[in-house]
Amino acid sequence: MFQTFEAQSSPDQGPPRLKALRAEMAARGFDAFLVPRADAHQGEYVAPRDARLEWLTGFSGSAGFCAVLPEVAGVFIDGRYRVQVRAEVASDFTPVHWPEIQLPDWLQEQLPGGVVAYDPWLHTVSEIAALREKLSGFTLTPTDNLVDAIWPDQPAPPDAPFTAHPLEQAGESHADKRARLADAMGEDAVVLTLPDSIAWLLNIRGTDIARNPVPQALAVLHKTGKVSLFCGEGKATDVADHLGGDVGIHNMADFLDDLQGLTGTVLVDAKSSPDIVVTTLRDAGCDVVQGKDPCILPKACKNPIEIAGAKAAHERDAVAMVRFLAWLDAKAPIGGLTEIDVVKALEDFRRQTNALRDISFETICGAGPNGAIVHYRVSEKTNRPVVQGDLLLVDSGGQYVDGTTDITRTMAIGAPTAEHRACYTRVLQGMVAVSRIRFPKGVGGQHLDALARAPLWLAGQDYDHGTGHGVGSYLSVHEGPQGISRRAEVALQTGMILSNEPGYYREGAFGIRIENLIVVVDAPALPGGDDREMLSFDTLTYVPFDRRLIDTNLLTQAERDWIDTYHADTLALLAPRLDEETSKWLAAACAPL
Amino acid sequence: MFQTFEAQSSPDQGPPRLKALRAEMAARGFDAFLVPRADAHQGEYVAPRDARLEWLTGFSGSAGFCAVLPEVAGVFIDGRYRVQVRAEVASDFTPVHWPEIQLPDWLQEQLPGGVVAYDPWLHTVSEIAALREKLSGFTLTPTDNLVDAIWPDQPAPPDAPFTAHPLEQAGESHADKRARLADAMGEDAVVLTLPDSIAWLLNIRGTDIARNPVPQALAVLHKTGKVSLFCGEGKATDVADHLGGDVGIHNMADFLDDLQGLTGTVLVDAKSSPDIVVTTLRDAGCDVVQGKDPCILPKACKNPIEIAGAKAAHERDAVAMVRFLAWLDAKAPIGGLTEIDVVKALEDFRRQTNALRDISFETICGAGPNGAIVHYRVSEKTNRPVVQGDLLLVDSGGQYVDGTTDITRTMAIGAPTAEHRACYTRVLQGMVAVSRIRFPKGVGGQHLDALARAPLWLAGQDYDHGTGHGVGSYLSVHEGPQGISRRAEVALQTGMILSNEPGYYREGAFGIRIENLIVVVDAPALPGGDDREMLSFDTLTYVPFDRRLIDTNLLTQAERDWIDTYHADTLALLAPRLDEETSKWLAAACAPL
Repeated sequence: MFQTFEAQSSPDQGPPRLKALRAEMAARGFDAFLVPRADAHQGEYVAPRDARLEWLTGFSGSAGFCAVLPEVAGVFIDGRYRVQVRAEVASDFTPVHWPEIQLPDWLQEQLPGGVVAYDPWLHTVSEIAALREKLSGFTLTPTDNLVDAIWPDQPAPPDAPFTAHPLEQAGESHADKRARLADAMGEDAVVLTLPDSIAWLLNIRGTDIARNPVPQALAVLHKTGKVSLFCGEGKATDVADHLGGDVGIHNMADFLDDLQGLTGTVLVDAKSSPDIVVTTLRDAGCDVVQGKDPCILPKACKNPIEIAGAKAAHERDAVAMVRFLAWLDAKAPIGGLTEIDVVKALEDFRRQTNALRDISFETICGAGPNGAIVHYRVSEKTNRPVVQGDLLLVDSGGQYVDGTTDITRTMAIGAPTAEHRACYTRVLQGMVAVSRIRFPKGVGGQHLDALARAPLWLAGQDYDHGTGHGVGSYLSVHEGPQGISRRAEVALQTGMILSNEPGYYREGAFGIRIENLIVVVDAPALPGGDDREMLSFDTLTYVPFDRRLIDTNLLTQAERDWIDTYHADTLALLAPRLDEETSKWLAAACAPL
Repeated sequence: MFQTFEAQSSPDQGPPRLKALRAEMAARGFDAFLVPRADAHQGEYVAPRDARLEWLTGFSGSAGFCAVLPEVAGVFIDGRYRVQVRAEVASDFTPVHWPEIQLPDWLQEQLPGGVVAYDPWLHTVSEIAALREKLSGFTLTPTDNLVDAIWPDQPAPPDAPFTAHPLEQAGESHADKRARLADAMGEDAVVLTLPDSIAWLLNIRGTDIARNPVPQALAVLHKTGKVSLFCGEGKATDVADHLGGDVGIHNMADFLDDLQGLTGTVLVDAKSSPDIVVTTLRDAGCDVVQGKDPCILPKACKNPIEIAGAKAAHERDAVAMVRFLAWLDAKAPIGGLTEIDVVKALEDFRRQTNALRDISFETICGAGPNGAIVHYRVSEKTNRPVVQGDLLLVDSGGQYVDGTTDITRTMAIGAPTAEHRACYTRVLQGMVAVSRIRFPKGVGGQHLDALARAPLWLAGQDYDHGTGHGVGSYLSVHEGPQGISRRAEVALQTGMILSNEPGYYREGAFGIRIENLIVVVDAPALPGGDDREMLSFDTLTYVPFDRRLIDTNLLTQAERDWIDTYHADTLALLAPRLDEETSKWLAAACAPL
């Protein structure tokens, strides 16, 4: 099993560690020390060694930080974690509502001034610049990490070797990628600190971080197209041949020395680069140019080989999903299932593909009221039986070598209410609206977001998350810059993979989300249409919706036709890959509405 | 008649004037002189005295500028005017595609360097700053206006007196508005140069500019709530009592002297203020703060009295429109009508309301292929007969003392084709989608724009203009910051009036546009809806759509219901105000689909 269900931390662990940290701060003359959730790579997951925030406070969420002062320790958490933090941290810690309350204002309220220390590897250039601008009366001082200093059994950095991501999956050699980026570069060098950028550029993968098959590494891309790769000793030995002579392999410890040797203009992405990168480059006399990591956009636009891989991965994953849904349909009405049983069964069906490298995130499986907790992760403590009358929301995905999947289906356990069906149908209408749309080039996800919400809006309803996020190719399940939300400004481009996942949540009662992955394609010309370039979405995910939850009276003919075609396509695609019994189940699930 | 149909300029007028201007430039040692379309107030229309660009070049469009050099004179025009400019200017002028080609790049291509002179009253702070940043090797020099120097019979500034906009229409006294703005001001003073801002703040109107009932004036709002108003001598005499003791009336000529007397921090809107405002303030030692004109947002959010006025104005205007449509329906099939006949008839019906102060813009009346020219203005030269088989697009509006209207209807002359009907129906579906939508607070027009386009997009079609613009209250028919387009970022707020006008244009064949005005209102709570604040639109315009152009097979039931309800409401609202014959016509036009 990839997923675990134990509580990963306990509120008891925090107080003695906080005391030790404060002693260390006092010894060094610091009035405050910042402990962020992030590691040096700013990813969504961190290695056990980098789980400093959880180790210190007990808080296990995926975002936030702790500001430790002599008399108070504020745990800054966003709206998703307001409830969770209270269960996970001891009373020695003070939860702070962030970003409503900003660190500089909070610090200024707590202390008249002093020395605020931070680990310059764990904070981005932008973060430190913003802090420096807003704090007055304080000195911001970089330091080695004080948590590391008081963590006797801190795990070692992950040491598993990197693997090559072969051309049959990557679709473009790393030599071609390096040459393409170098050609477009205006600077003498670019510092890369995002593991998925490095993974994409060099066609390598790693197992350093759970869920995301990225390598813990840093890199410099030179104007010559050559790359200096920095990682733990021995980790790149297996990929040395794959990388070839133009990619130098260096020890992580030599990274800063190497930066000091750079000259001329160096591009740094201030939003993701550790602060220490820029201070080191400036000390070395480099002209630091702040700009976007140049891997981000080309990585987001998948090539035809990657898209073919995504389709294969989604077909494979759909077989597991359909077997799971058939199983659930048979078992759930009998009773006795819990959320954890469901998560285990689903992971087992995915494992039976014999191709699963990891799950792409902790499966969200919420029965009844738990479905309304958008970022719910079931544990032994919260585990809930799945009972008649529940809606069951299951959001899950798999990492396969040819693609990353992410799918949500919501199922009725027993007979759904009219309200369940009306809400589900509106969510489905929104999902279908995005699936069907065509749009001119230049349109961004921010312009499409309302299409997914309109059916809910018209009923006075909405959901408090984006409609879609970008998805990597055997990489992170959340990747930018593409998205479908009010903040997704970037124009959508051919090859971008996105999720399409409207939802509806009624606190204390039920949650509904329906999610397919989609890929941006050139829309074929239509008779009578304009002579203008348009884009549309191809659907990657083919798994049936719960027909019992669809109120056909609410659908337009076009929506109904889309759903019937989708179900017919699903059946045609998957039936040949299923055993007879599951195939029969699928045929019934995919019958016309 | 407000509208005229003669060509306003001739290509012949330009060359001798260009020669005189170049002589003036040479005498003063200037290598280039800029002649913008704008006056000091940056509005959409200018007084005859300020029509310098047209006087010099013959180009009569509403945007653009001429850069006069010794050997070349570039007329910079955007996509709307590419065809028109060729007909209006002599070959001594060179049309330049703007903004694709930017002035600094063009200048640098034409000349090795030199002195670029400009009138600092006619260019905004932002324009000059951008030019200064991008031009190298040139000196940018403010000067008095060289066109004025060579224009012997330049018209005098408009001298008609201002009028008070009474409380019954304004809904808030200028004392209250001044106090409200002063309370929120962070600066010691704000310089106001936009006539509609001044009109709104002081509840005054003018007749200085065609179509927009704004006063040509400048003003300074002081932190005390007092205002210094600058205008032509005697223009404010009639409103002196209305303005009272806290609004000082000064001669326009004293404006700069007055700025020199300011101290402390002064807010200037760099996007609309003449460059000379900032240079004068800086010379006087003021601390210039760049920010948004503080009248813009409160002006956009109409109060209940203004909204009631808008409804009354729209009802009155709708009576004129319905009488016009009934007349057209009777006359057009007989033949012999031209576009100009139609414009004249419509203006006449509006005049018969006995309340028309002006038309709110030149009526756009395009038959057949002329309908596809988005900013078409009929002249004796372009006038086209209205014939069987045409679609006729009529976009028009009236200025009434209680409100500004703007409406577009497209009518079939004789039997429309299936293609006409399909395209019209899609445009109507987009208009209905915006009319029906509810949305949470915080949503901007950029998020709603796609709702209007989706029916066209799905057919491979689109239109190259925004879906909606803000509309003033007996003020400019185009006002910001609200809008419905990909660029309309501002969150929609209660009381904002907008147009809702999707369209479809097939070059050389036909144009379709359907436009209603709508106002943002608090959406009533719905049973089963969330406990979240939502907004919706109330429709202001009630005039029937052409039923012959609606293909009911393409409509959803919800769309059909909306149209039927709209037509029923139109009939109920207007029938009591119409003669029997027109009322009968309206009943037929408003019958259920």
